[in-house]
Amino acid sequence: MPIGARRVLRGDRQALARLISQVENRDPSALPSVRALYPYSGRATVVGITGPLGVGKSSLVNLLLAHLRSDGKRIGIVAVDPSSPFSGGSILGDRIRLARPPGDDGVFIRSMAARGHAGGVALATRETVRLLDAFGMDVVLVETVGSGQADVEIHEVASTSVVVVVPHLGDEVQSLKAGLFEIADVFSVNKSDLPGADSAARYLSEMTQLVPVTGSWRPVVIQTSTVAPRGIPELWEAVTRHEAYLDSSGSRQTRDRQRLTDEILGLVREQVDAQLLRALEREPDLQALLDRVVAREIDPHSAAERLLGEVRRPR
Amino acid sequence: MPIGARRVLRGDRQALARLISQVENRDPSALPSVRALYPYSGRATVVGITGPLGVGKSSLVNLLLAHLRSDGKRIGIVAVDPSSPFSGGSILGDRIRLARPPGDDGVFIRSMAARGHAGGVALATRETVRLLDAFGMDVVLVETVGSGQADVEIHEVASTSVVVVVPHLGDEVQSLKAGLFEIADVFSVNKSDLPGADSAARYLSEMTQLVPVTGSWRPVVIQTSTVAPRGIPELWEAVTRHEAYLDSSGSRQTRDRQRLTDEILGLVREQVDAQLLRALEREPDLQALLDRVVAREIDPHSAAERLLGEVRRPR
Repeated sequence: MPIGARRVLRGDRQALARLISQVENRDPSALPSVRALYPYSGRATVVGITGPLGVGKSSLVNLLLAHLRSDGKRIGIVAVDPSSPFSGGSILGDRIRLARPPGDDGVFIRSMAARGHAGGVALATRETVRLLDAFGMDVVLVETVGSGQADVEIHEVASTSVVVVVPHLGDEVQSLKAGLFEIADVFSVNKSDLPGADSAARYLSEMTQLVPVTGSWRPVVIQTSTVAPRGIPELWEAVTRHEAYLDSSGSRQTRDRQRLTDEILGLVREQVDAQLLRALEREPDLQALLDRVVAREIDPHSAAERLLGEVRRPR
Repeated sequence: MPIGARRVLRGDRQALARLISQVENRDPSALPSVRALYPYSGRATVVGITGPLGVGKSSLVNLLLAHLRSDGKRIGIVAVDPSSPFSGGSILGDRIRLARPPGDDGVFIRSMAARGHAGGVALATRETVRLLDAFGMDVVLVETVGSGQADVEIHEVASTSVVVVVPHLGDEVQSLKAGLFEIADVFSVNKSDLPGADSAARYLSEMTQLVPVTGSWRPVVIQTSTVAPRGIPELWEAVTRHEAYLDSSGSRQTRDRQRLTDEILGLVREQVDAQLLRALEREPDLQALLDRVVAREIDPHSAAERLLGEVRRPR
């Protein structure tokens, strides 16, 4: 077993942090350790926390963390930062929103920048979750901003998805976030100290009756607040009920299998991409090919066929 | 030349609509026409209009449309709908926001659902823009909601990107949309009838001094309003100035080349994906492979390597 992997299994936080950085940068030197640690994963409960910006997801995650720690659970947190894919970080300053309680070795918090293409973040997030799992965390919370593509990813990483909303969402926001209805296993109506929380929770409960579900699980709606903490144990109870449902219904197996298929396909795509880029750099012919497309002598599909030939050619 | 392509060149709107639907569904039967029309494209000015939800992009596009039509220009509009990738449409009802002026043949409006993976939408949008271009449109406006990944796509499709904002954006929204700073060639501070428009415009102008630029173009900030229409000619004037800059600086060529490279890579990826999915369905061995990953006997990377072998194998 590679030394990095062995250190992670021994509880070496620095080795874990280093490995996660390599995974985030899609550095191939992480591969031996990532592979060696795979058999040690699969025990953690992976919970996604998503929802629009400004609904208080980070505060909720902080309270969940405290709740789970008081229960003796070891917690990993992955915060996927929706920063610019161009700059690799928000130009308006990084928001540091989550911090490990000083001296608490039962917590490991990591934020990941959503740089590169969407698929790359999904792969890096999956592998990071698995590393935290192999490190011995009982629960891994994955926090992300629900915005289009990212919603799907949380669904692909977590076994239970908590969607956080607030009592008053504009019509347009609701329309945008329609995808959130389909991934939610549990709704948290956060900031429930605000007026309208009851009717929002009622509205969501009604909505969950309209959304087609596979299986018999109906999303649970929990009112929470982080100002005067409220509903946190109930929220976690709903998560564990969903986890129990996954086991009793047999859908955990189906989902895990689907998730692994997606991941493996993602890894193949990543390989193919790397090969394509290498082929583009290496082959002067391919540059000439591109020139001909620019000149509109041949069309992009013909060029793609030629490139595909390059990928098929054994190295 | 395929009959569909010939009809599009003759100005047959129905043939165009049919072809776009096929392209949107990634239907391979569109391919001969798409390829045949490629040499007829490359003349339209392609302008992206993006920004957060609720800033009035659609109203702005409608006013731009009227302005350009009064100038005799033929206009294509592609509205990329940020609907759920699961349902293929918003479960809260489709918003019909753009409509062709009755009897006006100089306008073609098409909305595209952001279904499937992000890359698929980008390819479909690119090809649709090119079809409208070959159809003889002088300007193609591509409207999309700026949310993470979609921002990048507009940048990859349009030669000029207009980013629409409103005077009051919360801090968190600004942080999320940091990526918009990097893609904006022109800012529209819309709803400039609202208080704070002047200071928002000033703030944006200052921000544009901070963002690193390649080349010498500094994003232009224009105040617009769609309630009491204001700033529309100025907005278009800024777009044409940017277009002229692209030509005079030589960056149009560089950008077009980069965009075509991305597109061709996207097409190869699409092919590889289709092949992978076929391989997964066809090969009982691959299903057994997946079983072994689920059982943690082998790791996802090993499975990916095996699958990659399938892709490399000639059909």
